[in-house]
Amino acid sequence: MASEASPILTQLDARAIPAIPLMPFKFFEAHRNGCRVIISVNGRDKRHGVDSIGTEAAALNTYFVADRYNPDLLITAGTAGGWTRQGAEIGDVYVSDQRFVHHDRRIAIPGFDEYGIGSYPAVPAAGLAQALNLKLGVVTTSNSLDENDDDRRLIAASGGTVKEMEAAAVAYVCEMMAIPVMGLKAITDLVDHHTATADQFDANLLMASRRLAEKLLQVIDFCAPRAIADLG
Amino acid sequence: MASEASPILTQLDARAIPAIPLMPFKFFEAHRNGCRVIISVNGRDKRHGVDSIGTEAAALNTYFVADRYNPDLLITAGTAGGWTRQGAEIGDVYVSDQRFVHHDRRIAIPGFDEYGIGSYPAVPAAGLAQALNLKLGVVTTSNSLDENDDDRRLIAASGGTVKEMEAAAVAYVCEMMAIPVMGLKAITDLVDHHTATADQFDANLLMASRRLAEKLLQVIDFCAPRAIADLG
Repeated sequence: MASEASPILTQLDARAIPAIPLMPFKFFEAHRNGCRVIISVNGRDKRHGVDSIGTEAAALNTYFVADRYNPDLLITAGTAGGWTRQGAEIGDVYVSDQRFVHHDRRIAIPGFDEYGIGSYPAVPAAGLAQALNLKLGVVTTSNSLDENDDDRRLIAASGGTVKEMEAAAVAYVCEMMAIPVMGLKAITDLVDHHTATADQFDANLLMASRRLAEKLLQVIDFCAPRAIADLG
Repeated sequence: MASEASPILTQLDARAIPAIPLMPFKFFEAHRNGCRVIISVNGRDKRHGVDSIGTEAAALNTYFVADRYNPDLLITAGTAGGWTRQGAEIGDVYVSDQRFVHHDRRIAIPGFDEYGIGSYPAVPAAGLAQALNLKLGVVTTSNSLDENDDDRRLIAASGGTVKEMEAAAVAYVCEMMAIPVMGLKAITDLVDHHTATADQFDANLLMASRRLAEKLLQVIDFCAPRAIADLG
């Protein structure tokens, strides 16, 4: 979302670079700590006038970024939901642990059931998490902001800790294109809180986006001089 | 799916043409009735060894087809579920009516709610449907083979008649790229039947794929000499 990206674009002093014709995605470039940083934002959906959230836009955007820039590391950064029962608090920033999974792709045919869940690998980042005081969690993705009983069942089965709407699609494309991928997710809402997710999301989006930008800069600075194998 | 595409590839005597590096999609080309026909199949997922079903692969594949071939008409063809209460029978072939919608993207924030549903336009095809004895229906898409209470509620609200797993993603990309899009869907399973969807799907996939191929050839022959505006 534009509001999620705004603080980091400002802090990186990023400049716009050419987009893909007909696609809503916006690309920016910055340099920091010897690294070239490309920031790709999903952009505004032309038909509906809102940010292009969800897995379809995420898969497309990831393809373009990976194909055009072949990054050493792709970070899917954004806001997310967490669970009080797992110790999450509003404003916490999580780094992806182990795998990215889907929780809204139920396909009860042998082989397809596992394809539905995905389980795309996350870059091992325990060392980074410890150094930067980030929580670690399995990121779980769906195309809905809410959570129903089927979602709950699949999230419990896969060990999902951070719930959002793009990461598994990003990781799906990254695995096909052999790009290491990490998730960095700031908590806007607590799924098991009595306040509706959408209301929490609205109330906390700006604060969480600022927290995300702060931690994202630290992550870039941590990763810049290191190899992927040295983040774990 | 490969098994859905197999009969039409044989009947069109299609030949394989180059694919997109790193992507699972398989492209084929044929000529019929003065038309160049490109058949793009989602291909096998490398990690899970099954067909790349669902909206992410569909969005990516559609982009490549649209970008590379700029077709006059894109047909998302495959198998689907229908409802006995709406008169569907196993083996029926539906052509898309009015719009393509999603039924698994619940985003309860103003503006985003409508984005979640999508409502991407289908090419008006009532004339084609009547001429070829096809049923007409709103195609509704999710990433799950089954249907839960939330899905049921959204399908009822949007008037969905044909339930499958790719079409709204195809139509999403087609609208961005200004490619007219039609759905052609053969019924493998009745969602409101007491037999599990997966069991019906397995039992009827080959028959429905043959029916699909038969009707797809008729659709190609009907469309070949006509403008898009003459299909309605």
